[in-house]
Amino acid sequence: MADPRAPRLRLLRSANIGPVTYRQLLARFGTAEAALEAVPRLAARGGGRAPVLADPAKIAREIAKVERLGARYLFLDDPDYPALLAEIDSAPPAMIIRGQPSLVQRDCIALVGARNASAAACRFARELAFGLGEAGVTVVSGLARGIDTAAHRGAIGGGTAGVIASGIDIAFPPENAELQEQIAREGLLIAEQPPGTEPLARFFPSRNRIIAGLAQGTVVVEAAPRSGSLITARLAAEAGRDVMAVPGSPLDPRAQGCNLLIREGATLVQTVEDILEAVRPIDARAVRSPTDRFSGPPPEDASEAERRTVQGLLGPVPVSVDELIRQSGLAPPAVHTVLLELELAGRLERHAGARVSLA
Amino acid sequence: MADPRAPRLRLLRSANIGPVTYRQLLARFGTAEAALEAVPRLAARGGGRAPVLADPAKIAREIAKVERLGARYLFLDDPDYPALLAEIDSAPPAMIIRGQPSLVQRDCIALVGARNASAAACRFARELAFGLGEAGVTVVSGLARGIDTAAHRGAIGGGTAGVIASGIDIAFPPENAELQEQIAREGLLIAEQPPGTEPLARFFPSRNRIIAGLAQGTVVVEAAPRSGSLITARLAAEAGRDVMAVPGSPLDPRAQGCNLLIREGATLVQTVEDILEAVRPIDARAVRSPTDRFSGPPPEDASEAERRTVQGLLGPVPVSVDELIRQSGLAPPAVHTVLLELELAGRLERHAGARVSLA
Repeated sequence: MADPRAPRLRLLRSANIGPVTYRQLLARFGTAEAALEAVPRLAARGGGRAPVLADPAKIAREIAKVERLGARYLFLDDPDYPALLAEIDSAPPAMIIRGQPSLVQRDCIALVGARNASAAACRFARELAFGLGEAGVTVVSGLARGIDTAAHRGAIGGGTAGVIASGIDIAFPPENAELQEQIAREGLLIAEQPPGTEPLARFFPSRNRIIAGLAQGTVVVEAAPRSGSLITARLAAEAGRDVMAVPGSPLDPRAQGCNLLIREGATLVQTVEDILEAVRPIDARAVRSPTDRFSGPPPEDASEAERRTVQGLLGPVPVSVDELIRQSGLAPPAVHTVLLELELAGRLERHAGARVSLA
Repeated sequence: MADPRAPRLRLLRSANIGPVTYRQLLARFGTAEAALEAVPRLAARGGGRAPVLADPAKIAREIAKVERLGARYLFLDDPDYPALLAEIDSAPPAMIIRGQPSLVQRDCIALVGARNASAAACRFARELAFGLGEAGVTVVSGLARGIDTAAHRGAIGGGTAGVIASGIDIAFPPENAELQEQIAREGLLIAEQPPGTEPLARFFPSRNRIIAGLAQGTVVVEAAPRSGSLITARLAAEAGRDVMAVPGSPLDPRAQGCNLLIREGATLVQTVEDILEAVRPIDARAVRSPTDRFSGPPPEDASEAERRTVQGLLGPVPVSVDELIRQSGLAPPAVHTVLLELELAGRLERHAGARVSLA
């Protein structure tokens, strides 16, 4: 009953509460308990019904299941929580992991690509992954078919982290069940969703942001235009990380996504050395502590006039929060408060790059 | 006898007189005749023997041969001389041409690559060249085997210029004799060397500078590292032109040169549109008139002290003329004069990027 994880998970698993809102609520109210209590009132001010809060019994069952699976939670303020991931706006407030969290506390490179990649590209990805492992770099990928699988297999001896869109107890594709188990034993397996969650399509972009966020750079090997791998690359770029791509012939349709990335500014890489060159300088970079982000004074209540101003500036097209603050002429805490209320009321959507729109 | 071309060609064909020196001599002495008269004196000051001046009878024979071949000279101050080429430091003071010089007065793209290119790359080059022709762009290349040949063949209907390292009456490789004749009839054929000159290895870099200098951008299709195509690309970059390259798989050795170029900053291109996008904005750019370059007051004589200063700063490693001027603390005309004297004395070598070294 006094499990301190329970109220935090309950807040996190409640409707309309995404990672950004979770962090803001904790910053504003100090504890998950206080935040849970405040949610209905804030949602009412946002002009919507109070979000359905998660059932405490369900949370208790989740915690028991996680422990039964030999997994554990990694909360944002846990010393084991990877510092680079904590830097991104939408860092998951809690992840469920099996294996060695130390693997994502050293240099990490994400290696992703097409599920239907060519045999040559899969072999190439495997060799790159092996070489990165030799250099002491952890290879992060998504345990999908094709390039992801090749990357994990190449890096299993050197250190690899797999991030999955399902619950930690579900393997997708099914033929990767054994590899997933091996990663949980010898590497690090990460899931954001609670156990038992099926890998629904809408979880994949969330999974991709974790892959991009964990790594200093993302390397794409063979990807079609408009594929999930390019989303990971875009998320990496938005997080200020290196984006790298392996080129291919213009006559090869499977090279189009990577060539496009390179045209748009991604670094062309052909060897492990090319990747390391792009990434090693970051070692010296000071990484912000995850607790810095909302350590200022908590946001205060907003007035009705402030609410109307912010809501009037919002529409269906995503706009950056900074832009909203500029255009509204209001103090940042007031704007954040109004956005928080709208989100809890189910009327706001948050997008990558700290942008928001009306839902 | 009163052929005004004769003294200019005589100056140009004399030993130790390259394109830069030629332009400086003309700027300083006003006419080729006056420059020819001054050369022995300047060379003596440079501390060497007077260069062997070209035999006037040989020049007369060259002019007669050029006319017999249906070719003509294009001098730097000719209104038909391509303005972009005139911009580069080492623009040829005179070229020998057959065909339509108007082809290099509109948008030009150089398309170059490996002699032993794959069949797929040759077909791709041909298609790019065809598309550029359709867009009203002249395709410039070097009439070598492989990519060059494919580029000319693809562009022959739309407009193509071939720049050769030999005299205009010699075809190399021999199997391109017919293509070369076709380019002379329907396109533009350019040679810097006098008729009868065999295509010696040392003429190829000179040929490459003309290809790069004529074009707003150079596209490389399949090239090995350290190949002639990469030299053309480097010369294009040094002239401030766009460098573009068609990527390939890291597993394909013939793609290494292009992938390397892209890593170093060349634009990755896959389509005609990609090439046009990189190049069309230049339309609006004001092109410097070729006569601007040496229109200031002619350089004056240098003092002995100035000579010693400049010579003391020179060594076997190329250094930029700007750097020499800075380090010497001398007025630019004095430095240019000392360099001119040294070159005429056979003691100076000029390199790309306005750099010089002791010979």
